[in-house]
Amino acid sequence: MEQITIENGVENVQQLPAFDDDFGGVMVELEEHMDSDVFRTLLKTSMSQWKLQGKKGVWIKLPIHLSNLVDTAVKEGFVYHHAEPDYLMLLYWIPKTKNPIPANASHIARVGAIVLNNKREMLVVQEKLGPLRGVWKISTGIIHEGEDISEGVVREVKEETGIVTEFVQVLSFSEAHNVFFGKSELFFMCMMRPLSFDIQIQETEIEAAKWMALEEYAASSKEYTSCAREQGLRMHITELIANAERGYSGFSPSKEYDNQSCIYFNKSDLEKKKTINNLKD
Amino acid sequence: MEQITIENGVENVQQLPAFDDDFGGVMVELEEHMDSDVFRTLLKTSMSQWKLQGKKGVWIKLPIHLSNLVDTAVKEGFVYHHAEPDYLMLLYWIPKTKNPIPANASHIARVGAIVLNNKREMLVVQEKLGPLRGVWKISTGIIHEGEDISEGVVREVKEETGIVTEFVQVLSFSEAHNVFFGKSELFFMCMMRPLSFDIQIQETEIEAAKWMALEEYAASSKEYTSCAREQGLRMHITELIANAERGYSGFSPSKEYDNQSCIYFNKSDLEKKKTINNLKD
Repeated sequence: MEQITIENGVENVQQLPAFDDDFGGVMVELEEHMDSDVFRTLLKTSMSQWKLQGKKGVWIKLPIHLSNLVDTAVKEGFVYHHAEPDYLMLLYWIPKTKNPIPANASHIARVGAIVLNNKREMLVVQEKLGPLRGVWKISTGIIHEGEDISEGVVREVKEETGIVTEFVQVLSFSEAHNVFFGKSELFFMCMMRPLSFDIQIQETEIEAAKWMALEEYAASSKEYTSCAREQGLRMHITELIANAERGYSGFSPSKEYDNQSCIYFNKSDLEKKKTINNLKD
Repeated sequence: MEQITIENGVENVQQLPAFDDDFGGVMVELEEHMDSDVFRTLLKTSMSQWKLQGKKGVWIKLPIHLSNLVDTAVKEGFVYHHAEPDYLMLLYWIPKTKNPIPANASHIARVGAIVLNNKREMLVVQEKLGPLRGVWKISTGIIHEGEDISEGVVREVKEETGIVTEFVQVLSFSEAHNVFFGKSELFFMCMMRPLSFDIQIQETEIEAAKWMALEEYAASSKEYTSCAREQGLRMHITELIANAERGYSGFSPSKEYDNQSCIYFNKSDLEKKKTINNLKD
């Protein structure tokens, strides 16, 4: 922080360490302990320079061990952008125009697993906690940051029931709002093929798990009326299964377009149409 | 904060105002200015009580105007859970067991709009900022918290181009990771029907917009090679359009199962199969 740099003809003395981002802004990343008075002085000087230089967004990433600096940044006009357990990101938007920077993540991705064995039985669990305690339901779980849906659902089924499965396709997805601290949820209903059959439950979250006859599950969807959303979901699951048995096409994942990101689409339709087209050609 | 309550035989003097959550924890919500020394004392007393009462997660929601209390909460062992521009949420997990509380939102939901007129032209835009500046591409945007995909994509097309559209279906979706501060992205490719045709661009974000012949767009997907992901997407779009013209089925939204949340699925397949089934019955 002792460096003196000349940029745009402006002499920068004693600025906070920062680097330019791709959108005309700067990012301050601090690691070493700093006294809040020192931080205030450096921040004021740095902000004057960045304003003169026409910078747009100024980001400050404060690790949690520098929580002593949060109040100072806020008093200087910064607002929170997002936080993870180990850091807080603050933002100051310099231009007079509306801040176009996206808010932090807005959605949670959840999955539900339809796992059917060849006796027309479905894998169901009872959770230990939460509003559906004591109800036989499909295995569900939250997809982690950085995890593919098709991987996450295999992990969840394995964790909850010990059953090894193979991902087949996404049969449907649904959206719900204000699910967790105002965030929205995308719920992906996945068809899975079981590769093992002996159940071993996860003691901490799951009370019980079993293979249930499809007829029994279908009947339960008519009885279970205490939660409209869950009842709707059970009716939907029952219909999807009936139709899956008759060749319903959901979305299957493919990396053929780009090996970084996975695209899910109606492959069977696309392939059918391709074949027809090739025949025409 | 002067109230004295007796719970589980424990006398609670001078505790922080808190209410129980549905998962065995408590939520502290502060609004009034508080000195950080007073806060420390109240927090210490409250934490002792909550530990004796067997509470699990302790949440503190601090509005940004109470940023003076962040450092104290952290020093008492709290970690950040999430932040929005106007508040910071902190968490302390009391039990010795692993904290089962989901991290904050993990995903961003984006949409792309395929808008075709009846001259086999597609609506394309050039953005003013970002890595795709100067490239003709479909209109894309971020879905807000609380917004349906089918609404958000109509809003984005209208904002960027002035074109009014009607949502038809989700043709595919893709997932990508580490897109924005480590978060994952779900990108929904939407087929839209235009209800107006005169373009009026949004000056702040969009450089230009036009109706482009599909052949021209398809040809460009072979030329545009500087970004693998974008090129893959263009090839995918071109294939989807060719197949949409031959009756490809994506997922359409329905509220028939539950009027709160929207389920997207292959309706045409489900209806086709239903009809066949009804004929059989």
